[in-house]
Amino acid sequence: MNRFFVPPESINGTRVVFPDEIADQIRLVLRLKEEDQVCVLDNSGKAYRVSLRYANEKNPFGEIIGEMPVEAEPLIPIISFIPLTKREKFEWMLQKCTEVGASCIVPTISERCLIREVRDLDSKMERWQKIVREAAEQSGRGILPSLKIPLNFSSAVQTPDSNTLKLFFWEEEKDLPIYRVYRSLGEKPNSITIMTGPEGGFSSEEAALAKQNGWHIVTLGKRILRAETAALAALLLTIYESERDEI
Amino acid sequence: MNRFFVPPESINGTRVVFPDEIADQIRLVLRLKEEDQVCVLDNSGKAYRVSLRYANEKNPFGEIIGEMPVEAEPLIPIISFIPLTKREKFEWMLQKCTEVGASCIVPTISERCLIREVRDLDSKMERWQKIVREAAEQSGRGILPSLKIPLNFSSAVQTPDSNTLKLFFWEEEKDLPIYRVYRSLGEKPNSITIMTGPEGGFSSEEAALAKQNGWHIVTLGKRILRAETAALAALLLTIYESERDEI
Repeated sequence: MNRFFVPPESINGTRVVFPDEIADQIRLVLRLKEEDQVCVLDNSGKAYRVSLRYANEKNPFGEIIGEMPVEAEPLIPIISFIPLTKREKFEWMLQKCTEVGASCIVPTISERCLIREVRDLDSKMERWQKIVREAAEQSGRGILPSLKIPLNFSSAVQTPDSNTLKLFFWEEEKDLPIYRVYRSLGEKPNSITIMTGPEGGFSSEEAALAKQNGWHIVTLGKRILRAETAALAALLLTIYESERDEI
Repeated sequence: MNRFFVPPESINGTRVVFPDEIADQIRLVLRLKEEDQVCVLDNSGKAYRVSLRYANEKNPFGEIIGEMPVEAEPLIPIISFIPLTKREKFEWMLQKCTEVGASCIVPTISERCLIREVRDLDSKMERWQKIVREAAEQSGRGILPSLKIPLNFSSAVQTPDSNTLKLFFWEEEKDLPIYRVYRSLGEKPNSITIMTGPEGGFSSEEAALAKQNGWHIVTLGKRILRAETAALAALLLTIYESERDEI
């Protein structure tokens, strides 16, 4: 069943008024017909089974006919700091991090990032949001990851949340895998914040600064991963570890 | 340091004669000079520190000046059955599975695969081998994953190795994660064989056939992953689990 995230104001009682972009997708791309069913999500964690109606041949709307379970959210929120890099790789990271389960994605500009400033931020954010939304719809997410504007490393590393477990993945660290950090905790964290580096990796100064700011410096394993693979691998393993024995 | 896999016959005593393609890369792409150093791998798990020489300006060769440690191989071999699919996604899977640590990659044609036969297999295998080699060089692998010719599902599922742990990742299975299978084993397996499905997933008949053939039917978690993400995620989590407490 096709899934669509809509803004809360699109839902009025049992009536769903689709934003133009989604209405076009329903009518022109998917060619769905009267009484076809779709899943509509309001980004509060609720999902509705919706039957399609056409006011006229150009304007589909929806009637809510029931609630649907949303079971695909991770047990605890994971905030992913990912390196800003060239378009194709960055957008791939956005898509994959959403698919795999990030709750929040923060593009980060560190010392060795290939991209050091963002031009046309508004239009880029719009494009990036769309990638996140489509990936969330495809992967069965119940909540859209929140996408933040790009941060410089020095701000990113000082993330003030004191109640989160902070994991800094650094290829120079060889000995400390995620599970050892996890095992050393007295209790399960309320959230986990992870950060992976750009193509050239993090510098020693950056790793030292992270450590000063309470990040655990951890390894992803023995192989050298590309920046985009590392972002995905760190998130996958973190979620796997956090859901261990609870799924 | 740049890394190159060469055929064993390229190494003669302390002299390395590069295949044309690698010689061109050294001279024209990387523009390496006399006495620059590279790492040469003979695919037996050995790595050599090699100093470059030029017989004339067109023909670089190498002098072995020492051995180098290779530490990036997984502790136990992992055989990955991945779905044959459209070119871009398939080649992405080859690259990522190599990077993350597969020992052997088997393209598999199952019921819902988008690609059901391979034309020009020889030229495709050559292209795929090159993708695997480059990914292995970049990620610090010490041994090239062996790439098999595509198999039909019915052959793939009957893989005769009785001494391997077989994990079949199926999105209809919701309850059994890798770590529970791992925990139920009396001892560590000698190798692990994993299989993930194509865009449309595996059919119930395929899952039943896998079960009959001794595969454990396992879940990758609650989110619906794309075929290519699933191939990578299954491999990453399997290696992570197999190296737990040993790295």
